[in-house]
Amino acid sequence: MESEHNPIKIFSGSANKPLAEKVAAFLGVPLGQAEISRFPDGEIKLRIAENVRGLNVYVVQPTNAPAENLMELLILIDALKRASANSITAVIPFFGYARQDRKLRSREPISAKLVANLITVAGADRVVAVDLHAAQIQGFFDIPADNLTAMVQFAQYIEQKGLEDPVVLSPDVGGVARASTFSQRIHASQALFVKKRLSPDAVEIQSLIGDVKGRDVIIADDAIHTGNTMLNACNRVLEEGARSVIACATHAVFAGDSLSLFARSKFSEVIVTDTLYMAGREFPAMFTVLSVSELIAKAIYSIHNHSSVSALFQA
Amino acid sequence: MESEHNPIKIFSGSANKPLAEKVAAFLGVPLGQAEISRFPDGEIKLRIAENVRGLNVYVVQPTNAPAENLMELLILIDALKRASANSITAVIPFFGYARQDRKLRSREPISAKLVANLITVAGADRVVAVDLHAAQIQGFFDIPADNLTAMVQFAQYIEQKGLEDPVVLSPDVGGVARASTFSQRIHASQALFVKKRLSPDAVEIQSLIGDVKGRDVIIADDAIHTGNTMLNACNRVLEEGARSVIACATHAVFAGDSLSLFARSKFSEVIVTDTLYMAGREFPAMFTVLSVSELIAKAIYSIHNHSSVSALFQA
Amino acid sequence: MESEHNPIKIFSGSANKPLAEKVAAFLGVPLGQAEISRFPDGEIKLRIAENVRGLNVYVVQPTNAPAENLMELLILIDALKRASANSITAVIPFFGYARQDRKLRSREPISAKLVANLITVAGADRVVAVDLHAAQIQGFFDIPADNLTAMVQFAQYIEQKGLEDPVVLSPDVGGVARASTFSQRIHASQALFVKKRLSPDAVEIQSLIGDVKGRDVIIADDAIHTGNTMLNACNRVLEEGARSVIACATHAVFAGDSLSLFARSKFSEVIVTDTLYMAGREFPAMFTVLSVSELIAKAIYSIHNHSSVSALFQA
Amino acid sequence: MESEHNPIKIFSGSANKPLAEKVAAFLGVPLGQAEISRFPDGEIKLRIAENVRGLNVYVVQPTNAPAENLMELLILIDALKRASANSITAVIPFFGYARQDRKLRSREPISAKLVANLITVAGADRVVAVDLHAAQIQGFFDIPADNLTAMVQFAQYIEQKGLEDPVVLSPDVGGVARASTFSQRIHASQALFVKKRLSPDAVEIQSLIGDVKGRDVIIADDAIHTGNTMLNACNRVLEEGARSVIACATHAVFAGDSLSLFARSKFSEVIVTDTLYMAGREFPAMFTVLSVSELIAKAIYSIHNHSSVSALFQA
Amino acid sequence: MESEHNPIKIFSGSANKPLAEKVAAFLGVPLGQAEISRFPDGEIKLRIAENVRGLNVYVVQPTNAPAENLMELLILIDALKRASANSITAVIPFFGYARQDRKLRSREPISAKLVANLITVAGADRVVAVDLHAAQIQGFFDIPADNLTAMVQFAQYIEQKGLEDPVVLSPDVGGVARASTFSQRIHASQALFVKKRLSPDAVEIQSLIGDVKGRDVIIADDAIHTGNTMLNACNRVLEEGARSVIACATHAVFAGDSLSLFARSKFSEVIVTDTLYMAGREFPAMFTVLSVSELIAKAIYSIHNHSSVSALFQA
Amino acid sequence: MESEHNPIKIFSGSANKPLAEKVAAFLGVPLGQAEISRFPDGEIKLRIAENVRGLNVYVVQPTNAPAENLMELLILIDALKRASANSITAVIPFFGYARQDRKLRSREPISAKLVANLITVAGADRVVAVDLHAAQIQGFFDIPADNLTAMVQFAQYIEQKGLEDPVVLSPDVGGVARASTFSQRIHASQALFVKKRLSPDAVEIQSLIGDVKGRDVIIADDAIHTGNTMLNACNRVLEEGARSVIACATHAVFAGDSLSLFARSKFSEVIVTDTLYMAGREFPAMFTVLSVSELIAKAIYSIHNHSSVSALFQA
Repeated sequence: MESEHNPIKIFSGSANKPLAEKVAAFLGVPLGQAEISRFPDGEIKLRIAENVRGLNVYVVQPTNAPAENLMELLILIDALKRASANSITAVIPFFGYARQDRKLRSREPISAKLVANLITVAGADRVVAVDLHAAQIQGFFDIPADNLTAMVQFAQYIEQKGLEDPVVLSPDVGGVARASTFSQRIHASQALFVKKRLSPDAVEIQSLIGDVKGRDVIIADDAIHTGNTMLNACNRVLEEGARSVIACATHAVFAGDSLSLFARSKFSEVIVTDTLYMAGREFPAMFTVLSVSELIAKAIYSIHNHSSVSALFQA
Repeated sequence: MESEHNPIKIFSGSANKPLAEKVAAFLGVPLGQAEISRFPDGEIKLRIAENVRGLNVYVVQPTNAPAENLMELLILIDALKRASANSITAVIPFFGYARQDRKLRSREPISAKLVANLITVAGADRVVAVDLHAAQIQGFFDIPADNLTAMVQFAQYIEQKGLEDPVVLSPDVGGVARASTFSQRIHASQALFVKKRLSPDAVEIQSLIGDVKGRDVIIADDAIHTGNTMLNACNRVLEEGARSVIACATHAVFAGDSLSLFARSKFSEVIVTDTLYMAGREFPAMFTVLSVSELIAKAIYSIHNHSSVSALFQA
Repeated sequence: MESEHNPIKIFSGSANKPLAEKVAAFLGVPLGQAEISRFPDGEIKLRIAENVRGLNVYVVQPTNAPAENLMELLILIDALKRASANSITAVIPFFGYARQDRKLRSREPISAKLVANLITVAGADRVVAVDLHAAQIQGFFDIPADNLTAMVQFAQYIEQKGLEDPVVLSPDVGGVARASTFSQRIHASQALFVKKRLSPDAVEIQSLIGDVKGRDVIIADDAIHTGNTMLNACNRVLEEGARSVIACATHAVFAGDSLSLFARSKFSEVIVTDTLYMAGREFPAMFTVLSVSELIAKAIYSIHNHSSVSALFQA
Repeated sequence: MESEHNPIKIFSGSANKPLAEKVAAFLGVPLGQAEISRFPDGEIKLRIAENVRGLNVYVVQPTNAPAENLMELLILIDALKRASANSITAVIPFFGYARQDRKLRSREPISAKLVANLITVAGADRVVAVDLHAAQIQGFFDIPADNLTAMVQFAQYIEQKGLEDPVVLSPDVGGVARASTFSQRIHASQALFVKKRLSPDAVEIQSLIGDVKGRDVIIADDAIHTGNTMLNACNRVLEEGARSVIACATHAVFAGDSLSLFARSKFSEVIVTDTLYMAGREFPAMFTVLSVSELIAKAIYSIHNHSSVSALFQA
Repeated sequence: MESEHNPIKIFSGSANKPLAEKVAAFLGVPLGQAEISRFPDGEIKLRIAENVRGLNVYVVQPTNAPAENLMELLILIDALKRASANSITAVIPFFGYARQDRKLRSREPISAKLVANLITVAGADRVVAVDLHAAQIQGFFDIPADNLTAMVQFAQYIEQKGLEDPVVLSPDVGGVARASTFSQRIHASQALFVKKRLSPDAVEIQSLIGDVKGRDVIIADDAIHTGNTMLNACNRVLEEGARSVIACATHAVFAGDSLSLFARSKFSEVIVTDTLYMAGREFPAMFTVLSVSELIAKAIYSIHNHSSVSALFQA
Repeated sequence: MESEHNPIKIFSGSANKPLAEKVAAFLGVPLGQAEISRFPDGEIKLRIAENVRGLNVYVVQPTNAPAENLMELLILIDALKRASANSITAVIPFFGYARQDRKLRSREPISAKLVANLITVAGADRVVAVDLHAAQIQGFFDIPADNLTAMVQFAQYIEQKGLEDPVVLSPDVGGVARASTFSQRIHASQALFVKKRLSPDAVEIQSLIGDVKGRDVIIADDAIHTGNTMLNACNRVLEEGARSVIACATHAVFAGDSLSLFARSKFSEVIVTDTLYMAGREFPAMFTVLSVSELIAKAIYSIHNHSSVSALFQA
C-alpha cells in the first residue's frame, strides 16, 4: 500500500509495540527505527535511528499509566520535530487521563486537557485516537483530532452470534449515549443502571431501568478499568433473570487483579481490543480480543493519501 | 456587598440586560457604563464610558444566536482590555454553539471550541457559564472556566411541591447524566427515551425505558430549543399512564413558534430560568421562571473576593 | 486554468455567493460543496460536503454586518482546518469593521484588529482583501495579507469616457491619499473637503479646497455606507459650478434607504463593484457595477500556482 | 507625585536619557539604575542595578535608527521581565520604522508590525508612543498601546502668536488628516500639496490646492526626516505669495545635513519636540523645542495610578 | 516569616515531601492541603483541598525519573491554575532530563527543553531550580527561572575541615566550569580528567591533568547518577598519590546499587544534599547530607516579598 | 546541485555577502535578488526583488554587532514570510549575543534567548548555526536548530602539519569541553588555564594545568573577541617552555585593534574561518582563513533535499 516517493513511516514507543507492528504489517512497511532505552537513573534515552527529513510520520503509543508512556510519546515527537519530519501524527489507541475531562468539583485539574496541551506543545500536527471516553476531547485540541471507533467491529462480531433481541446495557449513565449508538447498530433493546438516593440520608442504590428478563445482555462500555461496575451489573442482571451476559469494551485496562475477577465471573464472554498491551498479561479463555490494527492502518493510509477517513469515524 | 477600594464592575451587552441589572442590584452596584449602538451599516459601535484601569470587570452576555450577541461580547472584551482593565471575566449565562462540541461526522466544525478560542483571543481572563450543554466545554478553555448550575434552584422548587416518588425523565440519551444527578438530588426515580432501530431498513423508534405509570414525571434537560423532543416525550409518557408532566430546563430558547406549542401542550408546568432574554417575549401562564441572578452574583462575589465558588458548582 | 493534481478549491459562505460563483467560473472550477444552513434556534449549521484533505482551499466571504457573515467565515475555516485542508485562504472582498482600525477616543475597541485575530485563531493561513479602508490593516495580521484594488478597473472605465481634465474629489481627509493615487492614474486634478471650525464655540463647516468650477468631478471613496458625506459633497460642488459629478466607490454598502437617496441625487453616475451582495437589492439605472471577480480569480490563481500577485496590488 | 508603597520606577536606555530624566524629575523620582555599556565587540552589556521585583516599571527609549536603540529597549525589557517586574511599559517617544506600516509593493516587509511583535515577544505589557506616523499602529499590538500627541502643545504655542487666519498646510496627502485635526484646533484654514501626473509619460508635479496668498502658513507633519518635502513646500508657498512660513513637527530626525538646510531656509521658525536626542546636535536659533516630558510624565502617572489617560490622547 | 494578608502557600507533590515540609517549617507555614493519590489503573488523582484564589503558591517537586514525578507537578499546576491561584512558582530542587540539553547527535530530542515547555504550558509563572546541570537551561524558559546553588553550603562545610591546599577535581570536562568556581571559593587548586585517544583506532583513555600527589582531593559534580565516573576517578587519584578523597555533589541520584558501591569505595566522605528523596533509602555512615531547605525557603520568601534573591544565586 | 522544479534560493543580508556568494557558487545557484539599502534617517529599506512564493529559502546573515545585522535578518525574514515563501531557514554563521546565554548575576538579561525569540517571531522555520558558543542554545529554539562545526576542517588542517604529540589548550574553563573534543580528534594531549584565588582577599591568578614543555601548543576557542585571554595564554605557555603556539578559533571577531596585537604576538599561526566579514579588514600574513562555505552549502543541500545532515554536526 506504500508509495516509494512518499513513504508512510510509522514509529512505535514501547507501550504497545505489537499493535504498531500489526499496523505496519498491514500497510506493508517496516516499523521506523528508533532506539528507546533508559538511562541508569530511569530517564528515557531515545534517538530516531533513520532519516525522517520531510517525511510524514506516525507515532503509535497509547498513553495509559504509568506516565512513562506519555513521556515517551512526547520525547518521540520532540525528536521527530527536531529531525525535521514534515508532519507528525500521534496515533493514541488509548488516550490516558480521558476520564478527567471536566471539573466535577472545584480545584480539580482537567488532566485530559492538560495532556492535549502537552501533546500539542511537543509538536504533534494531528491526533488519531480510538473510542475516546468523551468525544468532546477532540475539542481539547486545536490541531485536527480524529476519533476512530471499534464499534463496527464489535457489532459485526456480535451480529454473527445470531442473538435474538439482545439488550445492550450501560453500567452507568455516563456510557448510555455510546451504548445507545451501539444498540441501534445491532437492533437491540437498551437498559441501564442509574444511581438512586431514596432520601437525603440514605445511601445510593443502583437502580436498573429497562427489561432484561430472559434476554441476552451485552454490557457495553468504552473501557474496563477495575471492572467493578461491570461485575456488579453482571450479577444484578442475572438476578433479574437475564439469560446470558457478555461484556464488551474497547480498552482492556484491567487494573490490579481484576482480570482474575472476570475469569471467575458469570460473564459468558468478554470482548475487548488490543489498544492496550501489558507485557506478560494473558487473557482468560473466555476473552475475545479484536484487533484495531486494520482500523488504525486504514486511518493512517487515508490521512497519508488525503482520502477521506469519515467511513472510519464513530457514528 | 461592594468594597470601595476594589469595586466590582459589571458591564452588560445588549443580549440580556435585565439579568445583568438584577445581578448588579444583588451586589449593590450600578451597571458599568458602556455605550453600545449600531453604525448605520449595522456594525457594532461601542465605547466604555467610564474609567476601568486596574479594575476587575465582569461582562454579562449570553451568546445565543444571532452572532451579534457573541460579537458584542468580543468587542466589549477588546475595549476593556485596551482600556487596561486588570482582569476580564466573561459571564455567559447561555453558551451558544455548545451543542457543536464534537465532530459527529467528518468535516464538521467544532464550533463550541471555536467560540472558546474567540473569547480567549479577544482577551478574557476567565469564563463563568451556567449549565453548559457538556461539562467538557470547560476543557476547551486554557483560562479558568466555571460551570455554575441552576439545578439546586430547580430541586428546591420541585421539592416544595411535595410530589410523591416522582420520575425524572431524560428525553434522550444525551441528557441522562444530568437527569440522573437531578433525580438523586430530589430522591426521584429515573426514566429515559432511547432510539431503537428494529432492522437495518427500519426507521428509528423512540423506546421508553423506566416506569412512569401513575407517576408525576419531570422531563429535565439543559435547554429547550424547539421543544419537539420534549413535547413528544410529554405525549408518550401520558400515553404510558403518567399522572402529570412537568418540563424543567435551564435555558429557554424556544425557537420559532415553539412557545405557543408548549402553551397548548399537556405539560402542567414548564420551569425555566432567565439566562436568555428575548425582547417582547412573554411566557404563557403555565411557565415558572426562576432567576439565576443570585447564583451569578454570588459567583462574581466569590471570584472578586477570592473566596471559594465550589458551593455553586454543578455536582 | 485548473490542474488536476493540484486543484483549486473555492468555497463560499452565504454572504456573496454570486461573486464566488463568478470567481469559480473564471477559474473553470465548480464551487466546493458546503452545506450551510441554520438550526431552528438560529445557530449556523455547517458541513463541508466533499473531501479536502491536503488541498489548498479558498473561502470567499465578505464580512459586512450582520455578524453572521463573519461567524460563517470563522466556522467554515474551523471545519476546513479540522478536515485537514493543507492551507486555507480567506478571501474577504469587503473587510467589515475596517473603519474601527484605531482608538480615536480612549476606551474604544480596535475592532478591525479583533476581527484579524479572530480570523487567524480560527485557522486561516492567509488573507486576500479588496481595497481595505486602511492599508495598515495588513499589519494587523501575522499571516500574509494581500490588499487587492479595484482602482485599475475604475480608472479604465473612467478613461474611456474621455473627460477633459477631470477633478478627483475626496469627500473627507481620510480618503485623500487614495483619491490622490487615483487622480494620478487618470491624470486628473484633485480637490477635497476639510472640516473647519472658525472659533472654539463655532460649529464645524465643510470647506472645499481645490478648484471644481466648470469641471467634471469624480467623488472617490473606498466605500459608501450611508452616502451622506458623498451626497452633501455632490450638492456643494455643483453649487461651486461643477459641470457634472460622478460617484466612485469599491464597496456598495448603502445602509438604510440610502440607495433611493442616490437615485434621487444629482449624480450623473454611480460606479461601484460587486464586493457586497444584498439579496433582493436592485441598483438604480444610473449605477454601473464593475465586477471584482476576475481580479480575485487572478489573485487566487497566482497564489495557487506560486506566481507573483504584485500586478494586482494597490499602487 | 510618587507613593512609597507603589513607587513609579523609570528606566532609560541610552537613546534619549535627557528626556527620561526630565520625565523622572517631573514625577519626583530618580531614574532607575541600569548599567548599560558595550562589550569590546560592540554587543550591548546590560544589568538592572536595583531590585524591581513586583514593581511596575516604565522604560523610556525612542527606537530611531540605528537598530542599537531598539535592541537596547528589547534587552532592557528582557532583563526586567526576568528580574520579575510586575509590569513593563515601553514608553517609545519616537516609534522607529513607523512609516513601513503597510506593503506598498509586493515582497516588502511591514517593518512596523515586525517591531511591534519584537517588543511584545521581549515581554512588554503595554506601549506608550507619541504621535505615531499612523494611528493604526496601535492595532499592530495585542497589548494595550496608547498614542499620545504633542498637538495640544503645538496649538497652545501657535495660538499665543496671535496669527490672523493662518493656513495649516500638509506637505503631502499622507499627513492631511493630521493637519486637518490641527487646523481645526487652531481655527485655521487648510491647504496641501498633491502629486499630479499630466499624462502617462509626464513626470509628476507637486500641485498646491488651497489658498495661501498673503497668509501665515504652518507646514505641519509628524516628523522631519530629511525635510526635503518641507523645504520644497516652503519655497512653493512663498512663491504663491504666503506672508510667512512656520514648520511644525513632533519628531526632529533631521538626517544627514538637513539641519543646516533648514538653518539656511526661508522658514521663519521651526517648532519640534524633544522625542529624539542626538548627542552633540545643536538646533539653529530659529528652532523652538517643546518638551514632551510633562505629557509622558502625566501618562505614566495616570497608568500607574489607574486614572484615565484620555485627556492626553490624540483627538 | 509569614504575613496574614498575603500568605505564602506551599504545596508538595509526593516526590520529596520531607524537603517541602522542612521548607514550610522554616517559613512557619503549614503545607498546603492537596489530595494526591492514584486511580486503580495508576492515573494520578489529585485535588487541591483548600481555597487558593488569588494566592501566590509554590509547588515543591523534583522531577527525577520516573515520569510520574513530572506528571504530578504538571497536574498540580493545572489544578492550581484552574483554581485561580494568582501565580504559581514551580520549585524544582532537581530538574530531571537536564543532561539532555542539546543535540549531540542528529535526531536526538532536547528533552530538557521539552520539559521546560511542558511546565510552561501547564501554567507555571516562574521556576526555581537548584544547581541545574547547565545554567543555560534558564534560557529554555520564557518565564523567569532562577538557578539556586548549594555551593555556598558545600564551601562552608569543607572550609571548616581546615584542609591544607586541597585540590578540586572535575571527573570530566563537562563539570570543570562548576568545579572551577567551587575551587576559587575555597582557595583550592584544580585538576580534571580528560579523555584522550592516542590514534584513530586506539580506545579512549582517561588522562589526569593537574597535580594531586599528597593532596586532599575533592571530586565535585552537580549530580551522582551511577557514580561510575566518580568511583574510577577516586581510584585513579589515590593511585596518583592523593592523601584522601571526598565526593561532593548536589543531587544524590545513586541509580541501581551504586549506593553500596560508594559504601565500599575509598572515599573518606560523600557530601550530598536532600534535593532528592527515595522512600526507604538510607545513606551509609560516610555520607553527609546537607539540606537545601533553608536555601529554598529564603528564595521563596524573597520572591514572595519582592526582595532580591541575588544573594542566593550561583556565582 | 540544483533542481529546476524545487530550486534552492539563497538570500544574503549585507553582513557577510562574500560568504553567501561562496555558498551559492558551491551550490551552483545565483544569490536571490534583494534590494537592501538605508533610508536617509538610517532605517533599513528592503525589498525582495524576485518571486519566492512557495519556495524554500535560505537567508545567510551573521548577527555580530552592530544590531543592524540582526535587524536586517529579521526584516528579511518578515519580507520573505509576507511574500509567501514556503519555508525560511536562517543560516547564521556567527550567532551574536551567544555568550549571554544564562544569568550569571541577578537582573541580567539572557540576550541569546531573546535573540532566539526574535528570530522565531519574525517567522523563521529553522536555524542553522556554526559553532555556537554553547550547544544548549539549540534548546532556546522551538523550531529545529542545527549546530554545524568547523572542527573537522581545523583538524584536517592541523593534522597535515604532522606535529608530534601536540597539546590542545583551552584558555579558560568555559572552552574545555570543546577543546577536549578537538584534542581527541587530533590525538593530542590537553591543558587548560583555571583561575585560582589563594585567599579571600587575594587577587585571582591564572593557573596552568597540564604539561606544555617542549610541545607544540594549539590554543583553541570558539571565537576570538578581544583575544586578551589568548594572547596572555600564548605568553604563559612560551614561558613554560612550549615549542610553538598556534591559535585556532572559528569566529574571527577581533574587536578594536586586537588584530594588530595578534600580528605582533608570538603566535606562529592563527587559524580562523570566514563566518564573519568586516569590510576593509585584512588579516596579517600569519593568518590562515578556512572557509565554512562548503560546510554550509552541504547543510543547505541536505536540508533542501531531505537528506541527513548528521555528518556535518558537532561531534
